[in-house]
Amino acid sequence: MAFPDAASEEVSAGGLTRRERSLLLALTTRGGRKRSGCCRCEGVRAVRELLAHRPELVKFVAVTDRALAQLELPAPVIRHVSEEELARCSETVSPQGVIAVAAIPSEASGEPEGEFILAFDQLNDPGNFGTIVRTFRAVGGRELWYTKGSVDPWCDKAVRSGMGAQFALSTRRFDNLLSMQRFGAEHGYERFFYADPHEGETCFTAEGLFDRSILLIGGEANGAGELPPGTRRVIIPMPGNFESLNAAQAATVLLVESVRRRSMK
Amino acid sequence: MAFPDAASEEVSAGGLTRRERSLLLALTTRGGRKRSGCCRCEGVRAVRELLAHRPELVKFVAVTDRALAQLELPAPVIRHVSEEELARCSETVSPQGVIAVAAIPSEASGEPEGEFILAFDQLNDPGNFGTIVRTFRAVGGRELWYTKGSVDPWCDKAVRSGMGAQFALSTRRFDNLLSMQRFGAEHGYERFFYADPHEGETCFTAEGLFDRSILLIGGEANGAGELPPGTRRVIIPMPGNFESLNAAQAATVLLVESVRRRSMK
Repeated sequence: MAFPDAASEEVSAGGLTRRERSLLLALTTRGGRKRSGCCRCEGVRAVRELLAHRPELVKFVAVTDRALAQLELPAPVIRHVSEEELARCSETVSPQGVIAVAAIPSEASGEPEGEFILAFDQLNDPGNFGTIVRTFRAVGGRELWYTKGSVDPWCDKAVRSGMGAQFALSTRRFDNLLSMQRFGAEHGYERFFYADPHEGETCFTAEGLFDRSILLIGGEANGAGELPPGTRRVIIPMPGNFESLNAAQAATVLLVESVRRRSMK
Repeated sequence: MAFPDAASEEVSAGGLTRRERSLLLALTTRGGRKRSGCCRCEGVRAVRELLAHRPELVKFVAVTDRALAQLELPAPVIRHVSEEELARCSETVSPQGVIAVAAIPSEASGEPEGEFILAFDQLNDPGNFGTIVRTFRAVGGRELWYTKGSVDPWCDKAVRSGMGAQFALSTRRFDNLLSMQRFGAEHGYERFFYADPHEGETCFTAEGLFDRSILLIGGEANGAGELPPGTRRVIIPMPGNFESLNAAQAATVLLVESVRRRSMK
């Protein structure tokens, strides 16, 4: 004969406290992230990336048996939850069984790093943002700059779609493109490029495109805001007279072009 | 004073017959497409592409006032529907106000065309398929080959995601990769390349990659099936040691590489 009380106690042993559960849910909102200074990181690969690069940021990890077997989690952060409880806290249709809560990394403060900087303005889709960030990470990128008018890199969907790649990068936030350009120029990143869907130098030959430069990606709907003086526009030439690539596709092509140029040196 | 009866008659004047409405709904299923030999084409841009390339295939177009103003539709195919009726027939959350029903184009029968052929095996996501087909069209591609084990190019979501680009291309379906390769070789497309996520020649230098060749894209989960003898694997080198690009990103990069090579000639 089963003892329902004993069984339910076992399920919640080492589980989330009420406070942790509220925090987990509050972090799906901008206000919740702002108040707590924390963000959610959901999914096996995203949590691995978080642990690999910024383990010190982790507050706790809600995890099911199934997901626990796929991760190497330090014992103190583990909060064992049932599949049902995880599903209630999850933002996805098919939860992978793990959601971490981590402090949002502070903005980079030292000298900028990397051959070129990837920058965003008015990019509003967290899914696109995540895809691009993941690719930037995969081509060996180091710094991500963005303006107020772009998606929050630490919102739930951006972290999920980025598979936590943002934890491997340094980020800096700027009021606008002009202050971004100034900061770049003061720190040796003098070239400012904008991935323009309509006109510009071809991305295959534009000189210095990845050489101490800032490469700006604009939004899906209306591109970027007012470009700083001296901005050079680059395009991906498409002969088919059909349509431009979407923001994530265009960024992928440009980022891989940086790999091609490096490999040709 | 309004006359409700008169008003409702006006709304349905020139609307869908019961038969047309059932057909429209049946075409969201594989069985419905097979029985009727027709497919759905939803969205303003997709319908424009259909009309531009294969107007003779159009059976009828369910369209709202709002969408009608954005299209140049021949009078006989117009079926005027209310926003509510269109929403009931639509497969999208925010319908654009137009769904065409068209005969599925027959497979190409003449000599293959184009500098290279884009081929699919075991690609199962219609959204990815559509994105890739759109890009292929945008780089000036002509022929799309696929095996039985791939997504149906004429399913609702593939047409929507492809924005109708498939209507601008010739398609050929093969039982398997071996029969595809044989057919290609017999018609002067002797090089057979596979976009491999893990190993192969780098895509930036692989000789003849877009020169009378077939470029095969595999599925999201398990790549392609058994590759024909003599297949050359190409990879997109990614230094970041993070993860490979997804199928749609990888295809985008390779297709744009064809533009780069052409521009360098």
